[in-house]
Amino acid sequence: MTAFAIVGHLARTDSGFSINDLPGSGGRMDVLCRCVNASLFLSHDLRRDVDCFLVLLGPPSGPKTIRFSGATVRSLSPDERSAAALIKKVIDVPCGSEFREVADGISIRKGGLERLLSEMPFGVLDESGEDIRKAKDLSGAFLLSDHLNFTEPEQALTSACLKYSVGPKCLHADHTITVVHNELDRRINGWQ
Amino acid sequence: MTAFAIVGHLARTDSGFSINDLPGSGGRMDVLCRCVNASLFLSHDLRRDVDCFLVLLGPPSGPKTIRFSGATVRSLSPDERSAAALIKKVIDVPCGSEFREVADGISIRKGGLERLLSEMPFGVLDESGEDIRKAKDLSGAFLLSDHLNFTEPEQALTSACLKYSVGPKCLHADHTITVVHNELDRRINGWQ
Repeated sequence: MTAFAIVGHLARTDSGFSINDLPGSGGRMDVLCRCVNASLFLSHDLRRDVDCFLVLLGPPSGPKTIRFSGATVRSLSPDERSAAALIKKVIDVPCGSEFREVADGISIRKGGLERLLSEMPFGVLDESGEDIRKAKDLSGAFLLSDHLNFTEPEQALTSACLKYSVGPKCLHADHTITVVHNELDRRINGWQ
Repeated sequence: MTAFAIVGHLARTDSGFSINDLPGSGGRMDVLCRCVNASLFLSHDLRRDVDCFLVLLGPPSGPKTIRFSGATVRSLSPDERSAAALIKKVIDVPCGSEFREVADGISIRKGGLERLLSEMPFGVLDESGEDIRKAKDLSGAFLLSDHLNFTEPEQALTSACLKYSVGPKCLHADHTITVVHNELDRRINGWQ
């Protein structure tokens, strides 16, 4: 089981954004939609052993976390609008502090990064981290930030986490997920 | 200089597609837009030494090729709609068999894959190819197909090309580009 969690610092926490303007009205919801794609899609298939968590921290409703479960998600296409439409569908549904499945494979709860970090050990994708190709045990859950850096409180929360780098260039979050998947695919299938 | 060329087998060759329905009305134009993103974007930067060629083979206007030049492109954002809007802007402009620059860093000409293959040596991204991590000289230009396989005539055209695989899983074209970039970034920067 692999998980990716992406912090959307400005990402809208209600449905008051336009599918036609994900970067602006969605608080860079486009970044998160591309991360869903990179986490879950293979060519003509889905990665059924992957969960993708979107940690939405923008206005107006306080932190919410949406989970896309590769095992059970349906009606998801690779384009940004498809993921965005599913986010819009679930985001206003009343929820508490436990995940509530609102559509097939898509769940939502209140709460943000602190809660998620308490539930599983995350490795943080960060340019200063260890090269993923050299990391001994590369598996489990990976945390990324959207187009903004982690804030100081977030850095404090993740200070004890292992840190990994995917390469010499600073990449978009979705591209980073793709490179991590490639390294995991190679390890699992003996392509070293 | 690195180049990526993506064959869009059904991709619309006039502006008669909707930015709100790139997969359907655009003939999977969403795939090509994500390939532009994967080819050209770094975090908060563009890859200025990369060209991305979109080979559009869909209806109604016969083959056209659009070139996004990282060196000079402007007004391009990472979201699918941004690349699609630029494609829509240039695609109806009258053009001949030579590239005509219609917007900053975006050129168009008539003609498809055969012409492009005659101009530079392409390596083909293909699951049956040599592992890119093991390839001795990995540089230059790379050819990919969209969501469809290369046709038999295309396979004949590329039969003499080197073939490379990015890993054990069959990936989307844009994810494949990201993995190739990562390998090139590592080689150029001594991350082996």
